Amino acid sequence: MARKASLSGFPEWLPEERLIEQSVIDVLQRSFELHGFSSIETRAVETVGDLLRKGEIDKEVYAVSRLQAEEASASESGLALHYDLTVPLARYVVENAGHLAFPFRRYQIQKCWRGERPQEGRAREFTQADIDVVGDGVLPFRYDIELALTVVEALGALPIPEVTLRVNNRKLAEGFYRGIGLEDTAAVLRSIDKLEKIGPGKVGELLRDEAGADEEQVRLALELASIRTPDTSFVEQVRALGVTGELLDEGLEELRQVVAEVARRAPGRVVADLSIARGLDYYTGTVYETVLDGHESLGSICSGGRYDALARKGNRTFPGVGLSIGVTRIVSRIVSQGFAAVSRPVPTAVLVTLADDDSWSQAQDVAAALRGRGIPTEVAATAEKFGKQIKYADRRGIPFVWFTDTDGTHEVKDIRSGEQVSADPESWMPPVADVRPVVTAV
Amino acid sequence: MARKASLSGFPEWLPEERLIEQSVIDVLQRSFELHGFSSIETRAVETVGDLLRKGEIDKEVYAVSRLQAEEASASESGLALHYDLTVPLARYVVENAGHLAFPFRRYQIQKCWRGERPQEGRAREFTQADIDVVGDGVLPFRYDIELALTVVEALGALPIPEVTLRVNNRKLAEGFYRGIGLEDTAAVLRSIDKLEKIGPGKVGELLRDEAGADEEQVRLALELASIRTPDTSFVEQVRALGVTGELLDEGLEELRQVVAEVARRAPGRVVADLSIARGLDYYTGTVYETVLDGHESLGSICSGGRYDALARKGNRTFPGVGLSIGVTRIVSRIVSQGFAAVSRPVPTAVLVTLADDDSWSQAQDVAAALRGRGIPTEVAATAEKFGKQIKYADRRGIPFVWFTDTDGTHEVKDIRSGEQVSADPESWMPPVADVRPVVTAV
Repeated sequence: MARKASLSGFPEWLPEERLIEQSVIDVLQRSFELHGFSSIETRAVETVGDLLRKGEIDKEVYAVSRLQAEEASASESGLALHYDLTVPLARYVVENAGHLAFPFRRYQIQKCWRGERPQEGRAREFTQADIDVVGDGVLPFRYDIELALTVVEALGALPIPEVTLRVNNRKLAEGFYRGIGLEDTAAVLRSIDKLEKIGPGKVGELLRDEAGADEEQVRLALELASIRTPDTSFVEQVRALGVTGELLDEGLEELRQVVAEVARRAPGRVVADLSIARGLDYYTGTVYETVLDGHESLGSICSGGRYDALARKGNRTFPGVGLSIGVTRIVSRIVSQGFAAVSRPVPTAVLVTLADDDSWSQAQDVAAALRGRGIPTEVAATAEKFGKQIKYADRRGIPFVWFTDTDGTHEVKDIRSGEQVSADPESWMPPVADVRPVVTAV
Repeated sequence: MARKASLSGFPEWLPEERLIEQSVIDVLQRSFELHGFSSIETRAVETVGDLLRKGEIDKEVYAVSRLQAEEASASESGLALHYDLTVPLARYVVENAGHLAFPFRRYQIQKCWRGERPQEGRAREFTQADIDVVGDGVLPFRYDIELALTVVEALGALPIPEVTLRVNNRKLAEGFYRGIGLEDTAAVLRSIDKLEKIGPGKVGELLRDEAGADEEQVRLALELASIRTPDTSFVEQVRALGVTGELLDEGLEELRQVVAEVARRAPGRVVADLSIARGLDYYTGTVYETVLDGHESLGSICSGGRYDALARKGNRTFPGVGLSIGVTRIVSRIVSQGFAAVSRPVPTAVLVTLADDDSWSQAQDVAAALRGRGIPTEVAATAEKFGKQIKYADRRGIPFVWFTDTDGTHEVKDIRSGEQVSADPESWMPPVADVRPVVTAV
């Protein structure tokens, strides 16, 4: 962000930056729809109970209450802003199960709020773009592959550097830990999750202290986490560690399929990274993170995974797999690094000038004709000197100005080149690239 | 809304209803951009001070605070969710004045929150679509006409009954009240604002009690408020009341221009309605309300007006004129009255079936080819019997299923008609109306 937000962690874009954000959202939306995902939105608030069920993030939650507390109704106490779009999805699925066709494929692009310490790439109000597939009872594993392909394709259409999808599998990790005698797999995952932050030495200590690991178990757990291959060769590397087990085998095979298929369809865009733990989230199979090549310090721009039970309703279980793209994080980087340029800051292609003050209504006719063909058009508000009207267009970045003579003839001028030609409001078209603002990768 | 919201006042749409909402938003957005308005979004939260400065609506504001209060930083105390998009615009303009080209034309489509008692047409979380033009120091009156034309055109493109824009002018009203000797014009406006709710008798009492009006003043104020003309004939009707004054003349002339121009360009869509007061809002000239013909009880679906000082920065003043469209109110009515229909509930046009389980990757090739031409496509996740795969498509509302034979030939079936034809993944196109879900007025 070029400018400092007036409220730390709550970024706001200028109109030309917003065009970039809109373009990012349009690309994602179109990509998701091409893959058959339906849009939904959920309310901004959830009950605090629903929000805290998922993990230990109570410090990050923004509670919502009526300013005049005595007016608050019972239904409104205990509400808070959602911090992600997964908890709301789970509730939405349970509430609307009778109205949805399963597997339910949905995308959701909305703001989320977390009271974390703001820093680059981490805002307190931010837009996420999520896709999930939710099954009723069962959800074939293949959706884990499909979602990986979908996000790689969607991110590949954005004006950003190449991305690398880092994939792991909880079954693989947990099967391995059990295979070496570590039963508290959650504690092991929590420790491994800190690898990038604190390094293997300190993670080893954690494994000893919190997961009760001995030297050999620490060595094997760290060795597993060091495996990172852009192809399916991780399978042999894991096998070489000499650990066996059914859950491990299942995880290896699932991860092999994800990596093989993504590497085949998007060469260079996937890595099996056995250090990916995804912290406290309740994933049960595939886990994903995504980094922008050369901008790894930005953190993951797209993360997610598989839940065996995203939601439950009585004895009905809804498994899901999904990913969440950090739109604000991506747009911030595009803006701060100048990854994309906007052809002009305003939608307007043409300013219809006024020869005299009485011609305003007639100028509206010209504007209506141009808009009818999809050309964004403004009409000057007052009949200032033409020089001033042209200057107005120039200052706002409007490329064309339109003149109507008292004899009813029309001319249009490209103020960038100075070229001025006769034109008919019923047929004139600007070059295709000038009809609307265009966002291009730089 | 067909279904009851799980949290009263916080409606959520099913995927097919969301398609209608998206279509409404797309139409408005396109219309605003054709008129040269730039998109911005502002943060969901404002300071309580900024929010309460505008009027006595503290009871309706939702305060926001960190759940763990001891963690809250000073900058975060006293925050609340915005209840409209005008207060945020004023702040945004002041903060970014150095980066904006004036007159600044912006549209903003975002959620707002008000803790009012929920009822049809009034939600606690709702989407507004605002357009405003903001000047630096001055803003020609013509923008008042232009904005009226813009919203009438935008609303006319929606799948709803015809709308009537009801326009009045604060200068006219205040000039008239002063002309009859009533100096507390705010008190008069507050009383007149209740006309529709409590009727002229009670408003008369209020005028006596709160604005100190005598019988003759009550009679004249009520007579002014009873004037309602679809053309500029209101001017003579006001003149016939025998009141004069500079401010009144100015207001009469402004209102005449708005009504004349809208009546000319959108016949039947405008009424000069001299009862429109717009309550406590600090308007200083034109005021607008809009009703859906035959659904007047729904309330205004688009309101706004002119502010001489939307915002101030030092001794710099930013006048503005704008309107706010109630998207949620409109969509609720479209859904509950069935004003529009969606051609199908999912984006997906084609389901690529699997002949056997190994053909999944090959089916992805077919899907990629179709998506490359903009055809939303899904691939079956498992090679169930074709009957089951077709049933899946049917249940989800997907019109076409694709079959690839083991010899590499392809066929596509329209499951509505049963017609099945040979097809090439590199060239086949569905009928244009089937590419994407289409929303049509019923």
